[in-house]
Amino acid sequence: MNLILLHEKDEIGQGRVRLQGRRLKHVLTVHRATIGDELRVGKINGLIGTGKVIGLDEQELVMDIQLDRQPPEPLPITLLLALPRPKMLKRILQSVSSLGVKKIFLINSYRVDKSFWGSPLLQPETLNEHLILGLEQACDTVLPDIHLRPRFKPFVEDDLAEICNGTRGYVAHPNVEMTCPCGVNQPVTLAIGPEGGFIPYEVEMLQAHGLTPVSLGERILRVETAVPVILSRLTP
Amino acid sequence: MNLILLHEKDEIGQGRVRLQGRRLKHVLTVHRATIGDELRVGKINGLIGTGKVIGLDEQELVMDIQLDRQPPEPLPITLLLALPRPKMLKRILQSVSSLGVKKIFLINSYRVDKSFWGSPLLQPETLNEHLILGLEQACDTVLPDIHLRPRFKPFVEDDLAEICNGTRGYVAHPNVEMTCPCGVNQPVTLAIGPEGGFIPYEVEMLQAHGLTPVSLGERILRVETAVPVILSRLTP
Repeated sequence: MNLILLHEKDEIGQGRVRLQGRRLKHVLTVHRATIGDELRVGKINGLIGTGKVIGLDEQELVMDIQLDRQPPEPLPITLLLALPRPKMLKRILQSVSSLGVKKIFLINSYRVDKSFWGSPLLQPETLNEHLILGLEQACDTVLPDIHLRPRFKPFVEDDLAEICNGTRGYVAHPNVEMTCPCGVNQPVTLAIGPEGGFIPYEVEMLQAHGLTPVSLGERILRVETAVPVILSRLTP
Repeated sequence: MNLILLHEKDEIGQGRVRLQGRRLKHVLTVHRATIGDELRVGKINGLIGTGKVIGLDEQELVMDIQLDRQPPEPLPITLLLALPRPKMLKRILQSVSSLGVKKIFLINSYRVDKSFWGSPLLQPETLNEHLILGLEQACDTVLPDIHLRPRFKPFVEDDLAEICNGTRGYVAHPNVEMTCPCGVNQPVTLAIGPEGGFIPYEVEMLQAHGLTPVSLGERILRVETAVPVILSRLTP
């Protein structure tokens, strides 16, 4: 937790906040802060600054906060991710959130195990918990938007054109001719398939609706490795 | 398992191999191959090709193999990785192996929990298992070398100069002036610290022995995210 993220409900007036639960426990056991210490804090979707520890015990952490810095620049890449298995999704959400991705669509594919759509991880609060872990890691405050699109064809036919509008669109797919470009200086829409990839029909549909297939060379990567690799490659 | 890796002990003469155990189980349950099918195979540290299924049952898989293709190009980056916690190390080993890293040193740092050095994961056969998973994922055959260096100062003083020789040396570290370069067209030696980073003394020592500190910008990434991000960024 390189940054303690604050919510409106933490505020107790006059620039003072009170925290309990997970964040209190972290400050007690990992930071091992004491009265007078200054911790890095940020308001969710707001500014970053410092929190001076006024009170700290097993029950609560009270800080006086001063917020004066902008969060880091977002990464202008909209991620369309074929829904991975839950354990991997948790890690990917933290990872892409820490990298600055602000717009995520979890989409379907033939090779997505249908049971994944029933995972309790997909509850909005639970998805947000993992995105927040990424923000706390990277010292960011701006919570990504995340949308579930369990039906591939309607998503591509009805939503994709608007999402792609004003962006360069790519679908990462093994063994296609064009290599993923480096350092794209424009907003990007990027689709990444499931383990085993999108099926040909899906690649064709995505391509017909604005996404250029690109590969990462000969090596076939697990989704969890491919995501940061491609995001890094696209980053100027 | 995008590639079935074969060892000398699998050979039963005349271009024929017999497999049992984990790989047999995978072919039965995931590939669901049948007699006559052709599977992608490769010999460890050797060529890639196809294996024609001659016999397949609960006891064994027998294939006639033809190996005729070179494995993919390696990634000319020597990775010096401060030892992560075991669960994360497993995933990082698979990940870097799939990306083509061939030389890995697991090194110490002040912030490495000393208990990690006692992990059974660090047995050579166990480390290799995870590297092999990465090769099978990426359709590669060349097993990376991996070395343990539990003492930081002797490693830097005695080993680092020789490792760096003929390479561009970098140590990834948050909040330093120079940003990690893109697409370096030379062999690289890359050090990545533990969660929380190398301590200043360690960064100074590494710098004094040939590694230039570089950052990835404002965002502080988990080691597991940073590794593929930096490897990708350095890749031409």
